[in-house]
Amino acid sequence: MKICVINPVITRSWEQDTQEEYSKFARPTTQVRTVSLDWGPASVESRRDEAIAVPDIMHKAMQAEREGFDAVIIDCMADPGLLAVREAVRIPVVGPVEASMHLAVILGHRFSMISLMEADRAFFEDLVVLYGIDRKLASVRCIGVPVLDIHTNLDAVAKGMMEASEKAVREDGAHVLIPGCNLLACLVPRIQASLDERGLPAVFLNSREVVMKLAESLVDMRLSHSLLSYPPSEAKEITWPVKTAFST
Amino acid sequence: MKICVINPVITRSWEQDTQEEYSKFARPTTQVRTVSLDWGPASVESRRDEAIAVPDIMHKAMQAEREGFDAVIIDCMADPGLLAVREAVRIPVVGPVEASMHLAVILGHRFSMISLMEADRAFFEDLVVLYGIDRKLASVRCIGVPVLDIHTNLDAVAKGMMEASEKAVREDGAHVLIPGCNLLACLVPRIQASLDERGLPAVFLNSREVVMKLAESLVDMRLSHSLLSYPPSEAKEITWPVKTAFST
Amino acid sequence: MKICVINPVITRSWEQDTQEEYSKFARPTTQVRTVSLDWGPASVESRRDEAIAVPDIMHKAMQAEREGFDAVIIDCMADPGLLAVREAVRIPVVGPVEASMHLAVILGHRFSMISLMEADRAFFEDLVVLYGIDRKLASVRCIGVPVLDIHTNLDAVAKGMMEASEKAVREDGAHVLIPGCNLLACLVPRIQASLDERGLPAVFLNSREVVMKLAESLVDMRLSHSLLSYPPSEAKEITWPVKTAFST
Amino acid sequence: MKICVINPVITRSWEQDTQEEYSKFARPTTQVRTVSLDWGPASVESRRDEAIAVPDIMHKAMQAEREGFDAVIIDCMADPGLLAVREAVRIPVVGPVEASMHLAVILGHRFSMISLMEADRAFFEDLVVLYGIDRKLASVRCIGVPVLDIHTNLDAVAKGMMEASEKAVREDGAHVLIPGCNLLACLVPRIQASLDERGLPAVFLNSREVVMKLAESLVDMRLSHSLLSYPPSEAKEITWPVKTAFST
Amino acid sequence: MKICVINPVITRSWEQDTQEEYSKFARPTTQVRTVSLDWGPASVESRRDEAIAVPDIMHKAMQAEREGFDAVIIDCMADPGLLAVREAVRIPVVGPVEASMHLAVILGHRFSMISLMEADRAFFEDLVVLYGIDRKLASVRCIGVPVLDIHTNLDAVAKGMMEASEKAVREDGAHVLIPGCNLLACLVPRIQASLDERGLPAVFLNSREVVMKLAESLVDMRLSHSLLSYPPSEAKEITWPVKTAFST
Amino acid sequence: MKICVINPVITRSWEQDTQEEYSKFARPTTQVRTVSLDWGPASVESRRDEAIAVPDIMHKAMQAEREGFDAVIIDCMADPGLLAVREAVRIPVVGPVEASMHLAVILGHRFSMISLMEADRAFFEDLVVLYGIDRKLASVRCIGVPVLDIHTNLDAVAKGMMEASEKAVREDGAHVLIPGCNLLACLVPRIQASLDERGLPAVFLNSREVVMKLAESLVDMRLSHSLLSYPPSEAKEITWPVKTAFST
Repeated sequence: MKICVINPVITRSWEQDTQEEYSKFARPTTQVRTVSLDWGPASVESRRDEAIAVPDIMHKAMQAEREGFDAVIIDCMADPGLLAVREAVRIPVVGPVEASMHLAVILGHRFSMISLMEADRAFFEDLVVLYGIDRKLASVRCIGVPVLDIHTNLDAVAKGMMEASEKAVREDGAHVLIPGCNLLACLVPRIQASLDERGLPAVFLNSREVVMKLAESLVDMRLSHSLLSYPPSEAKEITWPVKTAFST
Repeated sequence: MKICVINPVITRSWEQDTQEEYSKFARPTTQVRTVSLDWGPASVESRRDEAIAVPDIMHKAMQAEREGFDAVIIDCMADPGLLAVREAVRIPVVGPVEASMHLAVILGHRFSMISLMEADRAFFEDLVVLYGIDRKLASVRCIGVPVLDIHTNLDAVAKGMMEASEKAVREDGAHVLIPGCNLLACLVPRIQASLDERGLPAVFLNSREVVMKLAESLVDMRLSHSLLSYPPSEAKEITWPVKTAFST
Repeated sequence: MKICVINPVITRSWEQDTQEEYSKFARPTTQVRTVSLDWGPASVESRRDEAIAVPDIMHKAMQAEREGFDAVIIDCMADPGLLAVREAVRIPVVGPVEASMHLAVILGHRFSMISLMEADRAFFEDLVVLYGIDRKLASVRCIGVPVLDIHTNLDAVAKGMMEASEKAVREDGAHVLIPGCNLLACLVPRIQASLDERGLPAVFLNSREVVMKLAESLVDMRLSHSLLSYPPSEAKEITWPVKTAFST
Repeated sequence: MKICVINPVITRSWEQDTQEEYSKFARPTTQVRTVSLDWGPASVESRRDEAIAVPDIMHKAMQAEREGFDAVIIDCMADPGLLAVREAVRIPVVGPVEASMHLAVILGHRFSMISLMEADRAFFEDLVVLYGIDRKLASVRCIGVPVLDIHTNLDAVAKGMMEASEKAVREDGAHVLIPGCNLLACLVPRIQASLDERGLPAVFLNSREVVMKLAESLVDMRLSHSLLSYPPSEAKEITWPVKTAFST
Repeated sequence: MKICVINPVITRSWEQDTQEEYSKFARPTTQVRTVSLDWGPASVESRRDEAIAVPDIMHKAMQAEREGFDAVIIDCMADPGLLAVREAVRIPVVGPVEASMHLAVILGHRFSMISLMEADRAFFEDLVVLYGIDRKLASVRCIGVPVLDIHTNLDAVAKGMMEASEKAVREDGAHVLIPGCNLLACLVPRIQASLDERGLPAVFLNSREVVMKLAESLVDMRLSHSLLSYPPSEAKEITWPVKTAFST
Repeated sequence: MKICVINPVITRSWEQDTQEEYSKFARPTTQVRTVSLDWGPASVESRRDEAIAVPDIMHKAMQAEREGFDAVIIDCMADPGLLAVREAVRIPVVGPVEASMHLAVILGHRFSMISLMEADRAFFEDLVVLYGIDRKLASVRCIGVPVLDIHTNLDAVAKGMMEASEKAVREDGAHVLIPGCNLLACLVPRIQASLDERGLPAVFLNSREVVMKLAESLVDMRLSHSLLSYPPSEAKEITWPVKTAFST
């Protein structure tokens, strides 16, 4: 099968890493291709960023469908445009937040998000309500680092994640942990080992791995989102600054 | 005060009506200006349409703020981009769904949405959950007419609304009613009279009037959305097909 | 328009202040008249106090309606008798808790009440459940001062409110704040300034201003509570110690 | 033990029946005394009626405590003043709605209220939310008969209750039923027999019997409401039309 | 009346204490008989333990019904098998958790469980959701002592309970407290006295007393669980290692 | 990988079908082995049946773990013993209800269960609350056929399922459907085709396929349930009628 990973930003510096990481999680027979946006924001850290990113995410997903991809992964822990994109294509479209949250509820009593900036708290609290599983959220803990600074000091980020994870388990009752940004996913094995050492055996999900397995499973089962929930967008006049799939 | 009404579509045929209706609801000292989108969809009837409309809604709101407007109304019963736009400006940004739902909860025990297409049901059920007042929703009733067909047969639309309203009251326990599209707002007096005649004294809110009063009240009180909930978007690289306020 | 503010206690010492404050928040064309109870408690700090106050609140509201007032404000952060009084009159009856809580949900992600005595916590937690917006309550924080002592040491009260507000924002995730007593409303500008200085830009609502704007807006729109939710009380035998509107 | 039953209205015509029925449900060693209000409404069918009844209910409960009663039952399926009265006395105060709803949740999956007038629906829906068990309410079904007409045509009332009960079980999924008015409690055996005959083995609770057993159990256990939830009302100036326990 | 108390474990060392304690709480005319399991676990501290205990609990309840008992109490603060056993017999089957939680909601605003091991938290949080009253749970506080160690150091257990109770009241807002294990019930008077002394007048329920009063009340009223919720198990082939009531 | 499917009943007549169906859904490299119970009920249709089945399910899962299986599937749409078994083994244990409900929430707005007997309704309503996704349940529809009669008249069963599915979509707003019994899973393609033909494009999940994909994904990711939620059962004395893994 062929899976298209959309890097929903214009920043291409991590595109190669993304491609490699998803390829590692995919089965040998799964082909992965990562595409970045042509226009949009450098990173998605706000609802504004998300809103600006969604049109080209949608465009890239429609291209992927036309090119015969079997599923689309939106590689961002905001699931930007997840519901809108589903209306535009018939192949499954999955997001790492939705996939990880549901798996977290299967694996444990409550889960926490270990995220970057304080502003993420309200965002994830809204998202978990929208996804219908808010009763299972223990907390959103933030470490105070912006997305674009993660790679400049990975050790400090790892330390912050470890402290936040420990508080989420000890003080908030989290039994499963989810990173608040996919760029943190590479740190999961390190944090998991550290938690185990300290006798705090929470499960820390690698959100990229989880969403890849969901995508493959849906393709295996020939399942996609319900047409009743995501009715195909009807043809209508759309004016767009550049020629795209949805402009007329 | 000066209030900017954003008609969040490229369809300008109802722009003049919109301008007149909002002017009618505004106080004499309130100046209203209606602006339509330069690029976006002909109508907002899906999450795809909404996603395509939001970037230019945001752009128009930023322009309005720069031009000294005191508040922005997004004139669509999907509140498209409401949360995202609040991050981009400091003047109050209000939507008729949010404004009407909260007023409905103040005025009665439960409310129903009287909307257009069956697909609206899931949309409004998600929105009312996101707004935190889902326990007060009685039902979403739909009449099976697309937005762009409303004006071609207003009598049939009125009849459909009347029947749906009666069912919402009698079968679903609604005590307050909200139109699912602002283009239906002009029919509210007619439906209200008809309900009263039939001994079904539900309150049918005119969503445009309600949101105008909320905008004026916020400006009166010099209040706007919390910076903690809607932190100002930080500067970052944004690539955009045409030159706009948020492209770099 | 004419708006009647009911001071729902027998304490008249703050009646003049109340009249002035509401007049300040009203539009120039709005006439405000404040009336106190003839019988009832000195302050409303418990459900017992509330129960003892409601009959004369109802009586005063009925008088106001007969005298041509357009709306009634019950000036107390317990909304005493709000639902019962609505059954007795057809003009809008509004309470500062209900008005402020709904506006708080519009302006931010979660809100906290900054109140007086520890016993207020259960009271507000019940009220927010009844109003259907409990998911949006961050916390109820109390400063340990009884109503009748507020004016004897306003500086200590302000300090207590400031500390409680800071904790509500930092520890409970509040983005909007509401005073737990209308006598605290006069301190709102001071607390707001202090919060802004400390880099905690929560919005602190002035509950009296908010409820006055709601009352004016409802009168503007000729809207009142739904007759289905608040059916007019039918005539029946009522025995009452003194001759009032509802005794027979 | 001695239990005081408060008939929370001025209508004394059913006082003797009430006294006999509660005596029948009490243990032989339990003394029951029924007292009616001196001032208040003829019946409690609205929030207005309830508000007018509460002050004298509170007064009667305080008298009962002073006279050595061990518990107070407020004999009305609106639990009028239940929370307020608890602040005024230290002996247990129980209401048939609260008692029956909690027992219903113990005995079955969901319960319905079989009540009188359509306006009761919103009232009970609010009450069950306040009591924290709204997820267990199947429905409120109403038969369209006012309280004061129950005794004039008991057969028609029984027929209406039977039909509403059948619908509550078949259409709403109720497994336990609660009468919406204590005057209906005398019909419970008849409805229960009828349900059993039709193969609809829901449990129909006799709300008077249930609340008497709760009162006796609390006295047995020397338990009463928590002082933290119902702090004793502090002394303060209260002006009241006639000399009562709470006027000064 | 005759009430069968099932000690749902094979540990008989506390059987005599159990018998005496329940006899003390029963009315003089109530006969109590305590029976332990023939096969099952030494204690119920996990879902595994519970699962292993339920078949013989069910068997013992069926025996009790055949021998003319009027009600069954499952003496364990996990309510093991409560719902399953109700399908197997027609006499009332009650559990101390369910009984205590509902009474707690009647007596106060929120309640906390004061339990043994940290793993109990998720267990009780699930149970209170299943019972439909999760909105009323303040917290689950644990003291870190396994069931089988309670009696070896009762003073340390009492101290731990006191500290946990104080935190539940002060930090979590609990107004009523429930022991997380029936073996802690004997300490309730001591903890209650200690709380009262410290000015923390929460009500600490004796779960054994509460469930005995519920059992007696149900027998008094000739009420049992609804056949619609707990339909009698139909005859079917069951293979069981030893001959029991439900093997064929 | 090796996956053990536990047929949680003593009925072996469908064991071969189960083995074949799961093998069909597994990847070619996945080995499937189906084991039935040695003691337990002929079918699981009640909480009693479930309680009797769980001990041997647990025993079979422990055997599977010792024999090197990588995951356990409990093949029954009651997820019998799911939580308890997780405490007994460290390999992942998955149930088709939990797996299907979470996938349903990912694929559509609301889901319905299409089940067998009316008594299943309360059971699934409890389960979906326990799993934390009750807000996403549209309805439980039942067709009135006992498990053991499914195979005697598969055409009538298919017809009943089709009618119930249509009602779930049209009347209850379901967008995804889940069979209430795994023996119905073989009918899913037929019902799906029929729904598509009638223009009701709900997604009907094959619960067996869904749970197999979840099991394989978990093994791929080397993930299992959290030790904090499912702490390993500690050694303690257990008496059991026959020698098993958990008797001592």
